[in-house]
Amino acid sequence: MALCFHFLFPHPFIFKPNTFTNTTTTIPPSRSNFTIKCTNLSSSEPQPIFNSVQAFAPATVANLGPGFDFLGCAVDGIGDTVSLSVDPNVHPGQISISHISGDNHNKLSKNPIFNCAGIAAIEVMKMLSVRSVGLSLQLHKGLPLGSGLGSSAASAAAAAVAVNAIFGNRLGVQELVLASLKSEEKVSGYHADNVAPAIMGGFVLIQSYEPLNLMKLKFPEEKDLFFVLVTPEFEAPTKKMRAALPSEISMQHHVWNCSQAGALVASVLQGDVVCLGKALSSDKIVEPKRAPLIPGMEAVKRAALQAGAFGCTISGAGPTVVALIDDEAKGNFIGKHMVQAFLMYGNLKASAKVRQLDRLGARVISSTKK
Amino acid sequence: MALCFHFLFPHPFIFKPNTFTNTTTTIPPSRSNFTIKCTNLSSSEPQPIFNSVQAFAPATVANLGPGFDFLGCAVDGIGDTVSLSVDPNVHPGQISISHISGDNHNKLSKNPIFNCAGIAAIEVMKMLSVRSVGLSLQLHKGLPLGSGLGSSAASAAAAAVAVNAIFGNRLGVQELVLASLKSEEKVSGYHADNVAPAIMGGFVLIQSYEPLNLMKLKFPEEKDLFFVLVTPEFEAPTKKMRAALPSEISMQHHVWNCSQAGALVASVLQGDVVCLGKALSSDKIVEPKRAPLIPGMEAVKRAALQAGAFGCTISGAGPTVVALIDDEAKGNFIGKHMVQAFLMYGNLKASAKVRQLDRLGARVISSTKK
Repeated sequence: MALCFHFLFPHPFIFKPNTFTNTTTTIPPSRSNFTIKCTNLSSSEPQPIFNSVQAFAPATVANLGPGFDFLGCAVDGIGDTVSLSVDPNVHPGQISISHISGDNHNKLSKNPIFNCAGIAAIEVMKMLSVRSVGLSLQLHKGLPLGSGLGSSAASAAAAAVAVNAIFGNRLGVQELVLASLKSEEKVSGYHADNVAPAIMGGFVLIQSYEPLNLMKLKFPEEKDLFFVLVTPEFEAPTKKMRAALPSEISMQHHVWNCSQAGALVASVLQGDVVCLGKALSSDKIVEPKRAPLIPGMEAVKRAALQAGAFGCTISGAGPTVVALIDDEAKGNFIGKHMVQAFLMYGNLKASAKVRQLDRLGARVISSTKK
Repeated sequence: MALCFHFLFPHPFIFKPNTFTNTTTTIPPSRSNFTIKCTNLSSSEPQPIFNSVQAFAPATVANLGPGFDFLGCAVDGIGDTVSLSVDPNVHPGQISISHISGDNHNKLSKNPIFNCAGIAAIEVMKMLSVRSVGLSLQLHKGLPLGSGLGSSAASAAAAAVAVNAIFGNRLGVQELVLASLKSEEKVSGYHADNVAPAIMGGFVLIQSYEPLNLMKLKFPEEKDLFFVLVTPEFEAPTKKMRAALPSEISMQHHVWNCSQAGALVASVLQGDVVCLGKALSSDKIVEPKRAPLIPGMEAVKRAALQAGAFGCTISGAGPTVVALIDDEAKGNFIGKHMVQAFLMYGNLKASAKVRQLDRLGARVISSTKK
């Protein structure tokens, strides 16, 4: 089943036991259902309901072959974490990034206006018209930068959700996506195919931007879907990968990719992993232009398919390569073959992970009440 | 739910009371489940199990906006009928068209190799390796020629199903589509977006041709979907309409149409008629080029939407315009406005029909046993 989001609605925040402070917090139902348009908030500044909040946002696989620039999904167990606290030492209405840790943390700016988490956090504060409270933000990078796993989107999504949560979840999913899009715009372009699934979880189709129309495509609960994510030690900057795209496409290729995109969507909704893999593998427009820029990619794809993967393509703008399968053990086997192929044909070291679909999206993982 | 058809399987032929002979026939379950690859049939020529068979195939709406060239659906209550009988006066292994009636029947050739029904019938006889039986075929055209409602596909589909049925339904859906495609190829090109839904019913996505991969997209039983079909008195030859298409498409338009195609597929599977209409209306590639060739089309679309239609586009290659709605009375209202707009802005007389989805596809409607 697909769900159309044309309007504002509350995000189903999942409050889990706090792995850091051992506190469990739930938002009362009346509160969690409260949603209001950001434009109506200017006259009623919200007050924080938590002293601190910690939010996690998962990695995402955008594009998915023929789903280029409008389809993405979230994968579980890897992502970025934002810890946010009310800080009287921070200028009211502003945000300060106090600490960045994790993968390549020293490459990231602590200036909020140059940091993905900072930009999204500022946007949410603006939407909520926060003027009298200052916030301190800590970012833990669980995702490598520029890997094709939605690293910037995860930071933005975690920050947007954390700021919204600390003020009582006044904003809906759509506004959180819009806030995170402000961040993506500065990093890689105005594309929601990472931030939308990072916030909403599962598979998300971006139907339009003006207005923002998002469709969550529900992959059946009872079905197993594993992503084999193989990341080589290689930099594939999004800008370079975008420059490789053709500006014009033949009608024949357009119809082909369109039909594969339709099949991809149908396969997601049906939970047909075989058809999903086949459609994912079938891109004739983007992958053929980008694959030659990732050394060994074509051989890695062949290796994945030969090892039993149902499909394989570039994750986002690469260099991570994603393969699909319905079994974790098979996923590990496929991953080994892909890593070997990267070494043999691309002369690149690579690491493999096998992950499931993240159905939840960005969520608060701990909080301390005021 | 979407169903993938990668292999041979039996067609769920529906045997209804014979409106002509008042006989009702059912195929025994063991027989109806019998399917065999056509390539294996050469050594075992089937014998007819009926003296005569009458088959009906519904009209179809192909393209559906961003579903250009890979998506189509069947609409109920209008279509072509083929009556077929074993005829000792016809040379064994051959087919003879004895009579054509109905809409524009005198424009059609009785030479089977120049007639859509004849071509498909011959193909099915070849697939079955029929050498010792001659068949006589009568075609009743319920659909106007060149109207954008899959007239040629309906003739081919009805003929293919009738020949298959008379010999005991040895062929599966895929082979019937392939046989009918031979006919389409001679008339308008090798496109299955009319013949596949004409044979299979409902919505069908054509994922690939080599091999032929068809996905039936199940529109939920409990949902109402009405097609407002407005056909002006105007000829829009498929070849001319195809020549109007751009050969190259910008990446921006490609991504837009691809995302709308994905949304269209999701809306069908979810039974969301509002989203379906919206996606159907959103084509930025084909409709903008073809609409100016149908006088008044743009005004007709505006009139449909203003009258409450959820979406509107050209049916097939036109000139029929199709609008979507969830209520029959509203459909009639929308149809009137569309007819008025054709007269006012295109100076064309037009007629409107309101039809539901045909979920069955081509089927035997009567038969007489040997």
